Amino acid sequence: MDKSKQYKIFSDPIHGFISVPKGIILKLIDHPYVQRLRRIRQLGLGYLVFPAAEHSRFSHAIGALELGQRVLKNLQEKDTTISDPEINGTLIAILLHDIGHGPLSHTLEHSLIKDFNHEMMSLKIMEKLNQEFDGALTTAIEIFTDQYPKKFLHQLISSQLDIDRLDYLKRDSFFTGVSEGSVGINRILKTMRVINGNVVIEKKGIYAIENYILSRRLMYMQVYLHKTVLSADSLLKKIFKRVSYLIKNGEQINIPSEPLRYFLEKRPSAKKVITYEMMGHYLSLDDHDVMICLKSWINSKDPILADLTLRFLNRSLFRTTFINKKGLKNLKSDILAQTKKQLKKAGLPDDDHSAGFYIDFDKSYSEAYKYENESIWILDDDQKAIEFSKAADTKHIIALTQPVVKPYVVHLKELNLDVY
Amino acid sequence: MDKSKQYKIFSDPIHGFISVPKGIILKLIDHPYVQRLRRIRQLGLGYLVFPAAEHSRFSHAIGALELGQRVLKNLQEKDTTISDPEINGTLIAILLHDIGHGPLSHTLEHSLIKDFNHEMMSLKIMEKLNQEFDGALTTAIEIFTDQYPKKFLHQLISSQLDIDRLDYLKRDSFFTGVSEGSVGINRILKTMRVINGNVVIEKKGIYAIENYILSRRLMYMQVYLHKTVLSADSLLKKIFKRVSYLIKNGEQINIPSEPLRYFLEKRPSAKKVITYEMMGHYLSLDDHDVMICLKSWINSKDPILADLTLRFLNRSLFRTTFINKKGLKNLKSDILAQTKKQLKKAGLPDDDHSAGFYIDFDKSYSEAYKYENESIWILDDDQKAIEFSKAADTKHIIALTQPVVKPYVVHLKELNLDVY
Amino acid sequence: MDKSKQYKIFSDPIHGFISVPKGIILKLIDHPYVQRLRRIRQLGLGYLVFPAAEHSRFSHAIGALELGQRVLKNLQEKDTTISDPEINGTLIAILLHDIGHGPLSHTLEHSLIKDFNHEMMSLKIMEKLNQEFDGALTTAIEIFTDQYPKKFLHQLISSQLDIDRLDYLKRDSFFTGVSEGSVGINRILKTMRVINGNVVIEKKGIYAIENYILSRRLMYMQVYLHKTVLSADSLLKKIFKRVSYLIKNGEQINIPSEPLRYFLEKRPSAKKVITYEMMGHYLSLDDHDVMICLKSWINSKDPILADLTLRFLNRSLFRTTFINKKGLKNLKSDILAQTKKQLKKAGLPDDDHSAGFYIDFDKSYSEAYKYENESIWILDDDQKAIEFSKAADTKHIIALTQPVVKPYVVHLKELNLDVY
Amino acid sequence: MDKSKQYKIFSDPIHGFISVPKGIILKLIDHPYVQRLRRIRQLGLGYLVFPAAEHSRFSHAIGALELGQRVLKNLQEKDTTISDPEINGTLIAILLHDIGHGPLSHTLEHSLIKDFNHEMMSLKIMEKLNQEFDGALTTAIEIFTDQYPKKFLHQLISSQLDIDRLDYLKRDSFFTGVSEGSVGINRILKTMRVINGNVVIEKKGIYAIENYILSRRLMYMQVYLHKTVLSADSLLKKIFKRVSYLIKNGEQINIPSEPLRYFLEKRPSAKKVITYEMMGHYLSLDDHDVMICLKSWINSKDPILADLTLRFLNRSLFRTTFINKKGLKNLKSDILAQTKKQLKKAGLPDDDHSAGFYIDFDKSYSEAYKYENESIWILDDDQKAIEFSKAADTKHIIALTQPVVKPYVVHLKELNLDVY
Repeated sequence: MDKSKQYKIFSDPIHGFISVPKGIILKLIDHPYVQRLRRIRQLGLGYLVFPAAEHSRFSHAIGALELGQRVLKNLQEKDTTISDPEINGTLIAILLHDIGHGPLSHTLEHSLIKDFNHEMMSLKIMEKLNQEFDGALTTAIEIFTDQYPKKFLHQLISSQLDIDRLDYLKRDSFFTGVSEGSVGINRILKTMRVINGNVVIEKKGIYAIENYILSRRLMYMQVYLHKTVLSADSLLKKIFKRVSYLIKNGEQINIPSEPLRYFLEKRPSAKKVITYEMMGHYLSLDDHDVMICLKSWINSKDPILADLTLRFLNRSLFRTTFINKKGLKNLKSDILAQTKKQLKKAGLPDDDHSAGFYIDFDKSYSEAYKYENESIWILDDDQKAIEFSKAADTKHIIALTQPVVKPYVVHLKELNLDVY
Repeated sequence: MDKSKQYKIFSDPIHGFISVPKGIILKLIDHPYVQRLRRIRQLGLGYLVFPAAEHSRFSHAIGALELGQRVLKNLQEKDTTISDPEINGTLIAILLHDIGHGPLSHTLEHSLIKDFNHEMMSLKIMEKLNQEFDGALTTAIEIFTDQYPKKFLHQLISSQLDIDRLDYLKRDSFFTGVSEGSVGINRILKTMRVINGNVVIEKKGIYAIENYILSRRLMYMQVYLHKTVLSADSLLKKIFKRVSYLIKNGEQINIPSEPLRYFLEKRPSAKKVITYEMMGHYLSLDDHDVMICLKSWINSKDPILADLTLRFLNRSLFRTTFINKKGLKNLKSDILAQTKKQLKKAGLPDDDHSAGFYIDFDKSYSEAYKYENESIWILDDDQKAIEFSKAADTKHIIALTQPVVKPYVVHLKELNLDVY
Repeated sequence: MDKSKQYKIFSDPIHGFISVPKGIILKLIDHPYVQRLRRIRQLGLGYLVFPAAEHSRFSHAIGALELGQRVLKNLQEKDTTISDPEINGTLIAILLHDIGHGPLSHTLEHSLIKDFNHEMMSLKIMEKLNQEFDGALTTAIEIFTDQYPKKFLHQLISSQLDIDRLDYLKRDSFFTGVSEGSVGINRILKTMRVINGNVVIEKKGIYAIENYILSRRLMYMQVYLHKTVLSADSLLKKIFKRVSYLIKNGEQINIPSEPLRYFLEKRPSAKKVITYEMMGHYLSLDDHDVMICLKSWINSKDPILADLTLRFLNRSLFRTTFINKKGLKNLKSDILAQTKKQLKKAGLPDDDHSAGFYIDFDKSYSEAYKYENESIWILDDDQKAIEFSKAADTKHIIALTQPVVKPYVVHLKELNLDVY
Repeated sequence: MDKSKQYKIFSDPIHGFISVPKGIILKLIDHPYVQRLRRIRQLGLGYLVFPAAEHSRFSHAIGALELGQRVLKNLQEKDTTISDPEINGTLIAILLHDIGHGPLSHTLEHSLIKDFNHEMMSLKIMEKLNQEFDGALTTAIEIFTDQYPKKFLHQLISSQLDIDRLDYLKRDSFFTGVSEGSVGINRILKTMRVINGNVVIEKKGIYAIENYILSRRLMYMQVYLHKTVLSADSLLKKIFKRVSYLIKNGEQINIPSEPLRYFLEKRPSAKKVITYEMMGHYLSLDDHDVMICLKSWINSKDPILADLTLRFLNRSLFRTTFINKKGLKNLKSDILAQTKKQLKKAGLPDDDHSAGFYIDFDKSYSEAYKYENESIWILDDDQKAIEFSKAADTKHIIALTQPVVKPYVVHLKELNLDVY
């Protein structure tokens, strides 16, 4: 048989031609649960700042799959034994690692289900698929949940230096045009090894790791925690908070998306268990459900909901101001007062509770490199694994293990905060 | 005043940093009508074949604006007089040239409004904006409609070699990963000149033009008219045809998008005039309206509509087969018979009319270079403008003026058409 | 043993990391004969027009080797049987295919040895290496000379669509910045197949081939046959002609390079045989020998030699003018008269013979695609191989089989040829 | 007049099309002194490790010129007054800043002239050119030597963040394929400002600076101080040391390059003054002089010189081993003993003095960011300039101000140093 027919080829601007073998992996790609990822933007609202960052979780999943194929092949060439079922299991886990993401990726993660994170849902969905495919995902699930004896396979899909991060950093840097976040993927993949059952990096790859750590930091600072991204995220969360509030108060809200209506009206919790009902509705949800509701809510009778959604759709966003601790109390009351004044001017309700939908105090958090629990290991000349910050020839890596925390407030642009 | 505050900067993976001066142009970018383009995919359903081709009409509009800025600056440096109002007018016309596009760009262009094309709507919207901005778009409209005395300004926005094409070819090539479509934009922009009121290309740019013509041809062959793109387009049109049919027959169809309901139920015509009502609903429409309806219709009581939409959402598409003229009649009846057999097998209605929703005869059409009405002109050594195919040093350009027409049929994958 | 130690890795801006297995191939790369290629510029004098086109034959040889590795692996994955010795043989032939090039690649090919071309020398050197490596190159030589039964291996290294061309087009396009010459290498490599013992291209690769053919044509027009490149080539040949003339006349010329002195004084012929003596001196020659002589000759007592070399070193080149056939005779005598006038003005000998060193009539020749002897084959849907221009959907490929011939004259910049 | 004729365009793979206005700058580019830079490799011997890093100082000079044009234009747009003579002066200073480099850039800087560095020669040559061009370089020289009142112009051409560094980091990263060294040039150029007469970076550019600092560090670690580059540099210096030694001992050495003979025989000093004679010979020197001598010396009667040069030409280099301080004394005597043993085995002189040509103790030194004398300044929200490491939101920048010093020894590959 013609082997060229045994592959499907995807064309990717970043990794080039990606060959995916026919079989379970291609079947999973074609499955509605994975196809759903085409309708979820990888960077959530990031496209409001970076116009071309409109890529979906689907293209990231395919990209990560390709990097997985490359690294597994490299490891085999370096005499690490990996069986065909292990390869399949790892690739499936990579492909599905983010399948539990909801609309707009992280933004609404906590607005739909209580006590929830997307990894829980990823696992639930993988178990469902495992039933559907008669147990073909068992190894993948063991690797995903770190139950599988060969720990390095789990490390490849979830660690400080995993395939997921390599693809998303490269991809997000590429589409945003933020060149500072570009990672030398191939050098890292080429220098990965397995020693004593753990993923390590050969010494000659140490500078590629240093660059990777800094690139990750710079992507957080310039993209993921960009002021305007924070402000757009905040606005969307406020909108959903307002809708919840209105529903709780018995108001009639038009929710043209059925699955979204389910979550907004029921507000289910994932504390005890993710039910099949919950999962079913979740799998019907994507970015379109959110957008269609927003488009509908600009006509809401509630003036605050109408105002917030109109702002969102027309990209008339709030402003983000980073703040110092001192004088915080004055700041809070001042902002409240100024906001109420603006709302009054605009003919909107200007009581304290209403004004709360126009003010958001929060803090951004990023950590370039965590070295305590899950380190990156460098193989030194004596073939001994050394924790990366200790192997480095300068002390700046240690400095990068300190989290960077920045309190900020999101507020109406008309406010004057110059004195703070 | 700090001039750096007078620009807004967009980061684009293709053109780099794009500076847009504050003023009318930035106001237009921020206008809801232009922001709407963020919600319309440039390549319609192309992302189903090229996973990363998820870019919107908005990013294309910004990209075209940048190329416009570059070419106008180049022309001024080469002593072509262009006034500030002319620059503004041209840039506005470039920015808004595609504002009349509806959901999924070209795919549904003829499914929503009769006797319609998107240029008509672009003009209508520009006129509306002109009222809103107190006549600030008058020059832009004159240039767009080729009423403006300096013809070359219109040529820059609409001709065989316009700014629009340069950006979309480059952009679509970039995001699809189809390197054969890559155009040497900068060489072309650098060699543009205005001679006797017309845009011409300096002789040293002739090979860049040759490459541009071929790149355009190859993008048509490999992307815009890709078999699977044709098949996805066909499926979506069939879905809308089915809905129209059901509505005409008085069936109750759930249409969760209000503006889409308007078009599907009213089926307005643009023959006489585009009414304000029509335009208003049109400007509320984007890709999300289509997708949310598709997601709803998988639960339709009509088995054919439910089947077609489920196929679409799960990317279980039809197949496209190019056909030769001979034996066409047999082919048609054979396909019909085979289709009906398959529908029966699937428990779907298998009458002739129903089967019609599973078969689509059409032809693809592309023309690399039209030289008759609107030519590309090359400036020879004596500063005389010569039509491009005559200026070329081979005869293959002439050959490229012949349109390439390929009849095809879209059909169920299970059909056996090997004998044709 | 650690397999990562079994490879040497080269970092290439075009193909990325290139892994070369230790063994005969790496030994050949480290051999002085191959290292010599580091001292020969791939594009000869092209760097005088394209400042960054300073790449050597060595980097091209490594690049071609990598493409060879990729294509052989692809063919194996598509069920073509290729043994390890055949792989080695093919890769060696690719690596060494241009080993017979002399200083500045093509420019001086006919100025040093009579009745010579570089392929003859490549073979001679490969035979020498075969002795040195105890017959390890026997298969490589059979493949190189098309004696090996599996014809497709020879086609990979020498045909209308060989590995050599793919690398040099991509590489030269990259370093010159001439984007019109960029070739979609990976698509071509992915669609190569072997059918009935011949290399063919799968149908889905047909547009990549079309682009390849045009890119090659455009590289000829914009780079290899660039007016200023032609003029620099001509000047260098005239310099060598002058030296030969002076030597024949018994003048004392300082030739600081020993091997170059051998060739200039002996003017050996390769008609009957390439002697070991000839090859030995040839292998000592590289760009540096030429440059050091030029630097010395600016002090020559012969005024014409001194003038020509000074022009070369300071990049004060002649001008190239393309000419029409008609009026050629007048042109010739007019150019001669004008040249003599200029020489007189400059205090240089102005007799006819002397003026001949300042005038060069020649013609440039390029053929985008030869379809008669060695065609490119496309595999159609019925798995039948069809000659490319017949498989194409337009007639412009046929047009591209016509050679483009352009007569030109190289002359002093001060000449006035406007009337021609 | 046609303005397009007023520019000459260079095509660069990194910056694209570079327009250089006709006039003094283009005349300088065409001058033999600048053309000489075409014959000097930017990375010296770096091409022995990175095959495509064969780019010359000429292409870097043109690239730096282009960045200079961009940054001056940006500054003007941000309301910094810069007159036309100042622009010309700055661009000339950028173009010529490295004109004083000798063959192979840094490698031989101290082997030819005593008490010398290339900046001294750059100035000397600029003064010579100033005479030739009747004082047209006066402003350029004032800017170059920091005598010009507007200090920021000097900062652009020589500081911790100058045009020179931006181009060479980008260029060297590009040609070596070391992606970790890639710098976001355009973001840096876009955020440069002049405040109180000094170059500062707007706050939004702070992460681009962070990336620039780390990229520079990684280029030092991975390219400029690459083990094999250090070893090749060391070998070449030993060769020149050997030649000097032989000349001092009255041996007859064939030196086919006249200017090189001058420096090797005279060993002039630049302590008091650079004479015109010195400069004249220096300007005749380039990489070719070195290479042609090496090619000649493989036939030297001195066995050590012959051996060292043969090693160099055939890239049979020494090994570099980084060493710890402790046990250094034992190491030294052990290496000497082992080296002598190897020399004896090879039939080479094995006395202590001879062995010295096969052993090189040295240390590599790099400093990512010097903040004490010449800082990088960041403009904070209150328009106040703050030193970069203080403006950063982490402490890792401070850590990067510590120099990284690594002692190493270059030695024969056959030596066994495993115990150290």
